[in-house]
Amino acid sequence: MDASPLVEPSARLTPRDEAERRLARLQETLAARELDAAVIVQNADLYYFSGTVQQSFLYVPADGPATLFVRKVVERARLESPLADVVALPGVRALPGLIVERYGRLPARMGLELDVLPVTQFRRLEALFPRASFDDVGPAIVRQRAVKSPWEIDRIRAAAAIADGVYALVPALLEEGMTEAEFAGRVEAQARRLGHEGVIRMRGFNQEMFYGQLLTGAGGAAATFLDTPLGGTGLSPAVAQGVSFRLIRRGDPVVFDFVAVREGYIADFTRMFVLGKLPEALVRAYDQALRIQDVVKGLARPGVTCEAVWSAALAAAESAGLGAGFMGHGPGRVRFVGHGVGLELDELPVLTSSDDELVEGMVFALEPKFVLPGLGAVGIENTFRVTAGGIAALTTAPEHVVELTP
Amino acid sequence: MDASPLVEPSARLTPRDEAERRLARLQETLAARELDAAVIVQNADLYYFSGTVQQSFLYVPADGPATLFVRKVVERARLESPLADVVALPGVRALPGLIVERYGRLPARMGLELDVLPVTQFRRLEALFPRASFDDVGPAIVRQRAVKSPWEIDRIRAAAAIADGVYALVPALLEEGMTEAEFAGRVEAQARRLGHEGVIRMRGFNQEMFYGQLLTGAGGAAATFLDTPLGGTGLSPAVAQGVSFRLIRRGDPVVFDFVAVREGYIADFTRMFVLGKLPEALVRAYDQALRIQDVVKGLARPGVTCEAVWSAALAAAESAGLGAGFMGHGPGRVRFVGHGVGLELDELPVLTSSDDELVEGMVFALEPKFVLPGLGAVGIENTFRVTAGGIAALTTAPEHVVELTP
Repeated sequence: MDASPLVEPSARLTPRDEAERRLARLQETLAARELDAAVIVQNADLYYFSGTVQQSFLYVPADGPATLFVRKVVERARLESPLADVVALPGVRALPGLIVERYGRLPARMGLELDVLPVTQFRRLEALFPRASFDDVGPAIVRQRAVKSPWEIDRIRAAAAIADGVYALVPALLEEGMTEAEFAGRVEAQARRLGHEGVIRMRGFNQEMFYGQLLTGAGGAAATFLDTPLGGTGLSPAVAQGVSFRLIRRGDPVVFDFVAVREGYIADFTRMFVLGKLPEALVRAYDQALRIQDVVKGLARPGVTCEAVWSAALAAAESAGLGAGFMGHGPGRVRFVGHGVGLELDELPVLTSSDDELVEGMVFALEPKFVLPGLGAVGIENTFRVTAGGIAALTTAPEHVVELTP
Repeated sequence: MDASPLVEPSARLTPRDEAERRLARLQETLAARELDAAVIVQNADLYYFSGTVQQSFLYVPADGPATLFVRKVVERARLESPLADVVALPGVRALPGLIVERYGRLPARMGLELDVLPVTQFRRLEALFPRASFDDVGPAIVRQRAVKSPWEIDRIRAAAAIADGVYALVPALLEEGMTEAEFAGRVEAQARRLGHEGVIRMRGFNQEMFYGQLLTGAGGAAATFLDTPLGGTGLSPAVAQGVSFRLIRRGDPVVFDFVAVREGYIADFTRMFVLGKLPEALVRAYDQALRIQDVVKGLARPGVTCEAVWSAALAAAESAGLGAGFMGHGPGRVRFVGHGVGLELDELPVLTSSDDELVEGMVFALEPKFVLPGLGAVGIENTFRVTAGGIAALTTAPEHVVELTP
């Protein structure tokens, strides 16, 4: 077991054909945009294209083999990455010379992830390649990554299994009078035992997430800075989301919004629990959330636009007289009913008023939720993959409100 | 308790005089650099200057009162922030007009956090202020934030108390034959109960951290992409740090490197545990880590350079014949023995070959560590504040290797 202490023995490394297909698709983008090469550096993208997050510049020419130039721990990168060309980079300033050595010339037009690259980092690259011009390939990579391979869907299924697994343990973990924070800790401990990796990557600037948003009672209605329908007070304004020190009481809606991560891939999931019974208004709202999920299940398939899904969901909420609290309330309301998940939590497609069409292989979390001020929040969330003829859930736990004996 | 469900009732909001002193200091920087204003947007900086992370642009003129323009949940920002001027921003494009309305004119020279702001975000601000020039105030803010107020040090002390608290529980949580992941989950659950906030902010691009690096056995020697002396395999190459599925065995060094967060503030902490006894080579290395800590304690005080601390620590490691494994091994080695902590884990001062001097009020984690390939890692880490005459520890747990009965 300890023969290779640089890599967890149970890890499934990215297969070479996966990486090759992904790189070929990026190269199509580069060619179409008349870019000579892309340099990929951000962790999620780096892992996607190279199978490793060891500090690297992944150089992808428009044509021909890519090279991973590794600043730190090249021997580990060689074990983790399926790429044939993994070479040590003694220092950043050596990069242009090594590119010339391997490719014969420097690129004139380079693609970079300008949507995530800080200005300071970008200016260092500008200085390294003073004759190059730069274009943003971040959005194109995001679009590419939205469509998952069967191998990726298997990874997301493993994350979904963690969500389903902790769901089943909640009845043994939730007790009246405990703080939300203590309950969260108990759940998270079980998730770790099952292989939850902790770090939840998000692409959006300033977006942060820690396991999800476990919210109870009226506090579940607290809106916050995130682009999410729910929020919570958090333990302080410094974090401003998720669990608080509120004591969980009989009749409180317990929104179990849980993000699972396995081998980098994310599944997003929400179920409802209550000690005793939910107030009738919340039961009605939850039933409507389930109905909205059914509406989307009946509608979503390749070729359908995100707009069609969003407007059908919104119409169903409004027709039930619940439009005002759908996907948040007042200033906390968001205008989407789902979002892509993969190596990041905030991927495409976004189920909002967008002309983007669903494509087979996309994976998204569908999360119809309602906030009823003074009462709290309810909602359902499953992670679905888009199949040839519709959508199929990867998270599979039962969907009724779980009523526990206080 | 639920009167104000937007803010956790136990939270200690940023006092007005704290925010005013911080803003005044930033205004000195702006004046010295002939900048008309700064616009602050990144979560850690936004919280530091305004007391809230609600989606905002904090506009700080070189002279006069700042305004917090809030895009999402202005009512919450008003409850959380001590600033007098907290106003709703209906959309980003309204920002220049609102600035003119309140300040009479647009700034010609603006400071931005270019060290963390993605290029795309920067270009949007450039487009909003087409006649302005922009300068990077990120590094100046980082330098300012390195010196903590007594109020901030109290917050870090609360984080340190969580680290000390979970340390005391480890003997009841650690069992032979459990995976590192299961052990981590047990510890993390206790930390959550004590108020650990989860999200650990780091300023460096691509830097990520989840509770710390709980490493055991030879796997603790695995170097990785982070700018840290230790690494670990992680549960997969996608995460590539921290716990694995390795089973914890008798005689394994258990490196308990734990990052605590309370009200946004961080304490960093490492202790050693073992089921049974540590191998003699690791005991000797650990003793040397304690000696290096003593060397630094005897040396560090205001006016001493980081270089002096670093070279004294390195010399002590080398004189014991342990230079090769000090602060990592081979390609995983880092060239610092400590780093500032505060609202981010990777703050100033960095105890490396730098002319920066220690200043009263700075807070840093001192972490002499050794990696012995094939055996694992050992080390001690405490969070210290710089006092008028030296340094004083905020983390206070006993420092011997804790030998547990398997």
